[in-house]
Amino acid sequence: MKTLRSYVCGKWHTADSGFRPLVNPSTEEQIAQASSHGVDFAAVLEHARTQGGPALRGMTFVERAGLLKETSRVLRENRDELLELSRVNTGTTKPDGAFDLDGASGTLAWYAGWGRRLGEHPFLADGDGNQLARSEGFWGQHVLVPRPGVAVHVNAFNFPAWGFAEKAACSLLAGMPLVTKPATATALVTERCVELIVAAGILPQGALQLVCGGTGDLLDRLGPTDVLAFTGSADTAARLRDRDNLRRSNTRVNVEADSLNAAVLAPESGDGATFELFLRDVTREMTQKTGQKCTAVRRILVPRDDIDRVQGALVERLGQVVTGDPADPAVTMGPVATAQQLDDAVAGIAELAAAARLVHGTGKRVDGAGATGGKGFFVSPTLLRADDARAAGVVHRREVFAPVATLLPYDGTAADAASLVALGEGMLVTSVYGDHEPWLLGFLAGAGGFTGRVYVGSEGSAGDAPGSGIAMPQSLHGGPGRAGGGEELGGRVGLAFYMQRVALQGERGQVERLAGLRDE
Amino acid sequence: MKTLRSYVCGKWHTADSGFRPLVNPSTEEQIAQASSHGVDFAAVLEHARTQGGPALRGMTFVERAGLLKETSRVLRENRDELLELSRVNTGTTKPDGAFDLDGASGTLAWYAGWGRRLGEHPFLADGDGNQLARSEGFWGQHVLVPRPGVAVHVNAFNFPAWGFAEKAACSLLAGMPLVTKPATATALVTERCVELIVAAGILPQGALQLVCGGTGDLLDRLGPTDVLAFTGSADTAARLRDRDNLRRSNTRVNVEADSLNAAVLAPESGDGATFELFLRDVTREMTQKTGQKCTAVRRILVPRDDIDRVQGALVERLGQVVTGDPADPAVTMGPVATAQQLDDAVAGIAELAAAARLVHGTGKRVDGAGATGGKGFFVSPTLLRADDARAAGVVHRREVFAPVATLLPYDGTAADAASLVALGEGMLVTSVYGDHEPWLLGFLAGAGGFTGRVYVGSEGSAGDAPGSGIAMPQSLHGGPGRAGGGEELGGRVGLAFYMQRVALQGERGQVERLAGLRDE
Repeated sequence: MKTLRSYVCGKWHTADSGFRPLVNPSTEEQIAQASSHGVDFAAVLEHARTQGGPALRGMTFVERAGLLKETSRVLRENRDELLELSRVNTGTTKPDGAFDLDGASGTLAWYAGWGRRLGEHPFLADGDGNQLARSEGFWGQHVLVPRPGVAVHVNAFNFPAWGFAEKAACSLLAGMPLVTKPATATALVTERCVELIVAAGILPQGALQLVCGGTGDLLDRLGPTDVLAFTGSADTAARLRDRDNLRRSNTRVNVEADSLNAAVLAPESGDGATFELFLRDVTREMTQKTGQKCTAVRRILVPRDDIDRVQGALVERLGQVVTGDPADPAVTMGPVATAQQLDDAVAGIAELAAAARLVHGTGKRVDGAGATGGKGFFVSPTLLRADDARAAGVVHRREVFAPVATLLPYDGTAADAASLVALGEGMLVTSVYGDHEPWLLGFLAGAGGFTGRVYVGSEGSAGDAPGSGIAMPQSLHGGPGRAGGGEELGGRVGLAFYMQRVALQGERGQVERLAGLRDE
Repeated sequence: MKTLRSYVCGKWHTADSGFRPLVNPSTEEQIAQASSHGVDFAAVLEHARTQGGPALRGMTFVERAGLLKETSRVLRENRDELLELSRVNTGTTKPDGAFDLDGASGTLAWYAGWGRRLGEHPFLADGDGNQLARSEGFWGQHVLVPRPGVAVHVNAFNFPAWGFAEKAACSLLAGMPLVTKPATATALVTERCVELIVAAGILPQGALQLVCGGTGDLLDRLGPTDVLAFTGSADTAARLRDRDNLRRSNTRVNVEADSLNAAVLAPESGDGATFELFLRDVTREMTQKTGQKCTAVRRILVPRDDIDRVQGALVERLGQVVTGDPADPAVTMGPVATAQQLDDAVAGIAELAAAARLVHGTGKRVDGAGATGGKGFFVSPTLLRADDARAAGVVHRREVFAPVATLLPYDGTAADAASLVALGEGMLVTSVYGDHEPWLLGFLAGAGGFTGRVYVGSEGSAGDAPGSGIAMPQSLHGGPGRAGGGEELGGRVGLAFYMQRVALQGERGQVERLAGLRDE
C-alpha cells in the first residue's frame, strides 16, 4: 500500500506513525495512507522565508508566469495518470476527474498568459496615478508588492488538483512561496501533482512545499506578513482562524466555505433556449462531481406557476443519471468521497426533509452500478420541494454536500426572488435565467450584495454558457457571509491577496520609475 | 455642563445615567459628559437597514456624491466654531485643529468630486471585461454593488472630525448607511459635526446615526452583510473583533491600529533640499497633534555616519517647540488628549529608555506655557537614541502615542534599512529621503511589503511634499500586520470595503448594460 509523503525543506519526508487511511469510495478498499508526523513546521516556514520568498520576489512577472506555464504543461502531460488516481481516490467519472484536472492546468495556463502581460517588473502598478499637490512634484501611485511571508493553503477534499493549482497560480505569480495542504482523505492526486512538478525542476527551492497529513503547529507559527487561504467547511474555518497569533498579527485569512447557491428562473421563461439552459445547468450543477462542489446548486427558485413543470422536467433528467463505480463505463455519477461525507449527506437530506418533501431520490445510501452490493458511498440525485419557501428555514441554511437540491416557489417578482436568495446569507454564485433586463437589473440590485458571482443565462448566452459551477480564473471566486467572505481568482483580484498594496508618493517621474511605469 | 446626545432612529437621544466626563486637557476641567445608556441598538440597526440602506442603494453615484459635497460644505462653513471645540476638548493648537477639520471637509469634498465621475448608476464596474468563451455570448465583468447591511465606525480619540468624515465619505458614496461612534473622551467635535449635518437636512433618514458613549450590544448584533471599521489600539481591536457573531458571519472588519512608522534618510544625503525636507518633515511628524497621529514618525533611521549631525539638527528644531495651553498664542504644541494618554506616554518613554537614551525631553509630564502649574496633560518633544538598532527591540514594538521618536543608525545599505523597518512588523507609512533611485528601488523591494504607504522625499518632491503624516483620500491609508491589516481611502480602494465585488457573467451586451457600461 502506498504511503504518501510530504515535500518539505527540499526533501521528501516519509512519516513513520500517525497514519490516516485513503480509501476508494466506490469499493471502500484502503489504497494509501498519509501522515505528516515528524515534519518540522518551523523549518518549513524558514525554508520558504529564506529560499522561496527571496527567489520569487527577485523575479519579474514574466519570469513567474513562465513557472506557471511549465507547471501547467507537466499536469497536462500526465493527465491520464492523474485521471486514474482521481477515480481511485475520489470516485470521479472521467468527465468529473477532468473537471478537476483541466481546471488545474487551465487555471495555471490562464494566469501564465495573463501574467506575462504584467511585464518585466517585480511590482504591479495598481490603478491610475494622481497628482496630490499643485504640481507633479507630489504624485501618488498604488503598487502591489509581493508580501514578504509564506502562503499556507489548506484545501478541501473535493478538488485535489484544481484546489491546489488555483491557489498556487495566484501565490506564485504574486511572488509568494506556498505550503499546500490537501485534505488527507483525497491527497493522492495532489501528492502526485507535486511529485511531477518537483521532478520537472520547475520552481525555485522553497517556492512550493507539500504537507500530506495534519498541519501540526504550522498555523500557530504564522505572523504578520504570512497569509492563510482555506477552503472547506465553515466549522473548520472558524476553528483554524481562531488563533491568537493570527488575530494578534492581523494575518490575512481568506476563507471559502459553505454556500447555499441558488438557481433562479425568471418569470415568463417559456420553453425556448433560456429555459432549456436552465434545465441543463441545474441538472449538471446538482450532479457534477456528485454535487460535491462549493458552487453546486442547492436551491432552485421558480415562479409558483412554473414549479410543477420544472419539477417534472428535472425529475425526468435526474432519472437518467446512473450512479455507481466509475470503473463501470455505464456510470455517469460516482460516489461521494468518504464515509463521513455519506453520513453527512444522509443526515442533511433528513434535515431538509423536515421542511420539504422528497420528490426524487431515496434520502438514503444506495447500491451503485458496477459496485459490490453494500459497498461504496453512493447517494443518488435527490430533489426536494418546499411550497412555502420562507418557512423552510433549514433549506437556506444547511448545505448538503451531495447531489441534493430543493425546489422553492416565489411570486415572480425580482424583489421576492432576491429576498429568498438573501436568506442564504452569503453565496459563491447565484444563477439567474431570463431575458427581461429590467427584471434582471432589479434582481441584481436586490441579490448582488449577497453573492460573489451572478451568472445570467439567456437566449444570448445559451450557446456558450458553460454552467454556473465553473470557477473561472477571470472571474472572482468567493462570496460574503456564510460563503466565507473570501476572494480568489478573478485575474488581479486573486493576486492582491498575496500582495501588499502600497501607496507610493513622491515626485511623479521617480514614482513612475519605481512603479515600473516608465524606464528612463 | 453640556450633555452629549446620540442621534439614533431619526431622533436625538439623551441618556440619564452612565455618564463619562469630557475634559479640557490643558486645564483638566470637565467640559461635558456623555453616555449612550438607553439607546436601543437593535432599533438603530433596523433603522439603518430599513431606511438608510434602501435610500442610499437607490441613489446613483452622482447623487451620493452630492450628499458628500453638501456635508463638506456644512463642516467648512462652521469651521471656526468647530476649531474652538477642538481646542477645548482635545487641546489642539489652531493648525492642529485645522489639520483634523480641513482633513474632514477636504476628504468629503475630494470623494464628492471623484464620486461624481463614477456616473449615474448604482453599481460600479470594476476593471476590464473578459471574453470567457469562444464568443461574446459568455462575457465576464466585475461590478461593485453596495453591501446590503450597516457600517459601524468605531473611531479613535485623536481625529474626532477627520476620523468620522473619512469613513463616512467612503461608506455613503458606496451606498452603505453608517453608525459612527467617536471615542467618548473627545466626542464633542463629532457630536457637533453630526448636529450640523442633521440640521442641514442633507442625508436620507437612517443614513447616518451617532452613538456618543459605549456601543452596548451593537457589535454583537452585526451579521454577514454588515461591516465594522475600527481605528484605535491593537488591544481594543482584538477585543472588539473577538466575537462569535463576527467570526460566524465572516463580518468584514477593517482595522487601523498601532504603527511604528519609520523615517529613513538614505546615505550621501548632503545638506541640500532633500536633507532639509527630512528635518522639516521629521520635526513636524513628531510634534503635530502632539504626536497623536497613527502616521507619526516613531523611528528615525539614519546612516551611522550621519547620526550625530541629525541628532544635533533635530534637537535644535525640537527645542523651538513651545508646549502649553493652545489658548496662549505663543504655544505651538498642545497637551495630549487625556490623563490616560499622559500616563501611557510617560510609561512608554520609560520603556524605550531601557533600550535607548534620552537626548531631548524630560521623559515626564511638564508644566505647559499659559497653563496652571501642575494642571494639564503636557509632554514636551522627546527624542531618544539607540546605537544598536537591532538590539533595541522595544523601539520597534512599543508605540508611544505622544511627541516621541527614537534615532537609530543603520549601515547605509538599502537592505539594512529595510530589514530594520521590517522589525516594526507592519506600518501605515514609511518615509524615505534620497535621490539615488537604485537605492530607493532596493529599499522599496525590501520594505514595501511591510507598509501601506511609502513617501519618497527628494529634490523633486521637496517643494510640494506635505509631510508623510497626511492620509490623503487619493492614497491608501492602512498597513499590514501590527498596523491592523486595513485598507481605507485610496479612492476606489476605500469604497471597495463597503461594496460586494460581483463577477457578472452572461452575454456581453446584457452584462455591460447591467454593469452600467452601455445604455442601449
